[in-house]
Amino acid sequence: MALIVQKYGGTSVGNTERIRNVAKRVAAYRADGDQVVVVVSAMSGVTDGLIRLAKEITPLPSEREMDVLLATGEQQTIALTAIALQTLNVPAVSLTGAQAGIVTDGVHTKAKIQNISPAEVHRLLDEGNVVIVAGFQGQSFSGQITTLGRGGSDLTAIALAAALKADLCQIYTDVDGVYTADPRLVPNARKLPEISYDEMLELAGSGAKVMQLRSVEFAKKFDVVFEVRSSLNDHPGTIVKEETSSMEDVVVRGVSLDKNQAKLTLFGVRDEPGRAARIFRGLADANINVDMIVQNVSHEGGIRQTDISFTVDKPDLLKARQVIDGLKPEIGFKESVADESIGKVSIVGVGMRSHSGVAAKMFDTLAQAGVNIEMISTSEIKVSVVIAADKGDLAMRALHHAFLE
Amino acid sequence: MALIVQKYGGTSVGNTERIRNVAKRVAAYRADGDQVVVVVSAMSGVTDGLIRLAKEITPLPSEREMDVLLATGEQQTIALTAIALQTLNVPAVSLTGAQAGIVTDGVHTKAKIQNISPAEVHRLLDEGNVVIVAGFQGQSFSGQITTLGRGGSDLTAIALAAALKADLCQIYTDVDGVYTADPRLVPNARKLPEISYDEMLELAGSGAKVMQLRSVEFAKKFDVVFEVRSSLNDHPGTIVKEETSSMEDVVVRGVSLDKNQAKLTLFGVRDEPGRAARIFRGLADANINVDMIVQNVSHEGGIRQTDISFTVDKPDLLKARQVIDGLKPEIGFKESVADESIGKVSIVGVGMRSHSGVAAKMFDTLAQAGVNIEMISTSEIKVSVVIAADKGDLAMRALHHAFLE
Repeated sequence: MALIVQKYGGTSVGNTERIRNVAKRVAAYRADGDQVVVVVSAMSGVTDGLIRLAKEITPLPSEREMDVLLATGEQQTIALTAIALQTLNVPAVSLTGAQAGIVTDGVHTKAKIQNISPAEVHRLLDEGNVVIVAGFQGQSFSGQITTLGRGGSDLTAIALAAALKADLCQIYTDVDGVYTADPRLVPNARKLPEISYDEMLELAGSGAKVMQLRSVEFAKKFDVVFEVRSSLNDHPGTIVKEETSSMEDVVVRGVSLDKNQAKLTLFGVRDEPGRAARIFRGLADANINVDMIVQNVSHEGGIRQTDISFTVDKPDLLKARQVIDGLKPEIGFKESVADESIGKVSIVGVGMRSHSGVAAKMFDTLAQAGVNIEMISTSEIKVSVVIAADKGDLAMRALHHAFLE
Repeated sequence: MALIVQKYGGTSVGNTERIRNVAKRVAAYRADGDQVVVVVSAMSGVTDGLIRLAKEITPLPSEREMDVLLATGEQQTIALTAIALQTLNVPAVSLTGAQAGIVTDGVHTKAKIQNISPAEVHRLLDEGNVVIVAGFQGQSFSGQITTLGRGGSDLTAIALAAALKADLCQIYTDVDGVYTADPRLVPNARKLPEISYDEMLELAGSGAKVMQLRSVEFAKKFDVVFEVRSSLNDHPGTIVKEETSSMEDVVVRGVSLDKNQAKLTLFGVRDEPGRAARIFRGLADANINVDMIVQNVSHEGGIRQTDISFTVDKPDLLKARQVIDGLKPEIGFKESVADESIGKVSIVGVGMRSHSGVAAKMFDTLAQAGVNIEMISTSEIKVSVVIAADKGDLAMRALHHAFLE
């Protein structure tokens, strides 16, 4: 008898027909003798509808009240899922985040899980119930309703799996698993049977949309092995786990493309200590997340000058530019140039650590495909390049062919 | 500085525009220096939509899970109302029933309030907040989400007013107050400035739709004076309170018509001890509420026989007939006849106690209007008669003219 935590996203519970299908799947596991904890998101569209209502009142609703409002979405799904299971004669009990013992800090709309008291869940499981827990939500120490922010339901599932010492954690979604590349862009992409936490993190951070970074980080920290799989079929998915020695045999695990970044270049920044720090402190203070940074040193006339380029999420570009232009007197650059037509292509694999020449092969492949590289950034298990946006698909296919076929 | 509890029903918070209007009204009271606790229902349509979702899964969803599901409706309204108040720069905090300290028994879908711990509400009020409490819901001793059943939000408001020792409790609805008769049926109907709990109870029990009986009973038990008034204008409403001596000067406070009853007559019941008890125990066991009962004694041949008539809510008629026909061998009656085309007209007033001849005047008025009386039932402050359904409006107008104009 295994203890399994299953998480179903908004699409998988998007209407009562799908909720019934989820119930059938859960019932099948239970018929095999497993104990099952089910974590569900709000039905797709519900959260957006609630946000729309709040925005009808004010563009800036209070975060505490948004948590009270949005937490109702998952609460509706847990009740409907429990009802669907009971209709299949499977004993089931729903629990809100608070009732499931999920305690968070008090940072509304992006609370962090502090602690899970799984006694109630264990008690209900031991009584023979399937336990349905509302994802995305918790309760602060002072009894306030909190939500965990984007990807929060994945986090709930993984944190519960850790607290319950579950044998298996399954993240059900609308894709079959983690692929070597986005199959819509690369027809030859293959589903990966397994991937390491670090590879998953680098892929997610490089534009692959399967899961939010924080859930994978949490799984890594607490060593929770989980499987990403589809709620639409019974195919095995991708197991995400700690790196094994055999994983290093594969140099590149996957290729990803991030079209959601924009590039800002400051030309003629005086090359003195503290200038770069001033730029990026300013951006950080404005809560703008900077991804890649490249600095080239150059001489011009008698003053040492440099050009600094960096990338930010596209929606932050305008704000970033305002911050930068506001700092112009202080930083002392000549001009700033923004470029929204970029794509970031990355290759990821733990095997890179023990294989040399990976970056060279990447650059060579891109050159042969006629793709110009604008920026380069590397980590231990990843190489990312910024290229022109309209070359993104071509670059992906070329790299996938070179490394993964 | 007064402490006011205001309750707004589903129509009053039916969309964000109306929620903004509620916020403006609350803000005006607060600007006058009052402390305000606001109790809200689910936005109109929300509860029905959730019930529809559950019924898509099964016609008989579990009551525990229905409570989890339906409680989200009021939770959405509290958040949106708090956001609307904050937008008017009024500090406001929303609380679920559980957070507001509303403790109930564990009878799902029709829980009874056991206890209210108002400490958190007081603390938030003392900090200068308007406190928005979700109506209709509470939490059982074991931490389960419960709902209070029909009219539950009124009950929440009145119970909170009692627990907080509020100076005033206002029940906002879509009518201006309690009328001498339904203005749609009786054009001369007048709004009553005040009414006693007992009169309100008799009117509500006689078909007037203003409030559920249990909320009025609760208010009477805990001596909570409340005002029924409209959320659409600023007219004073009707104050509902303990009877005063001056109230007895008015013989009849109001006239009501209940078209939702049906009559069952059992002909030829043997007139022996225990027969009537057997009938009505059978109906009670089937959870059928019987309103009026009339028994006429008669002789026929050598065996003492009687006819027994009683009324039930129309939706219960079929079930009542099945119960009765199932008991036929045991009760020994000749035949049962159902009549759905009836109306119950009642006159209500505490002044009846000290004024004689009220019933006689009622019967006389109906006779002059050509209305035949089928059944009669009286209480200390009410006389009800069953008449043909199509004579209901005529009877109402005649009685209103005779007693109230």
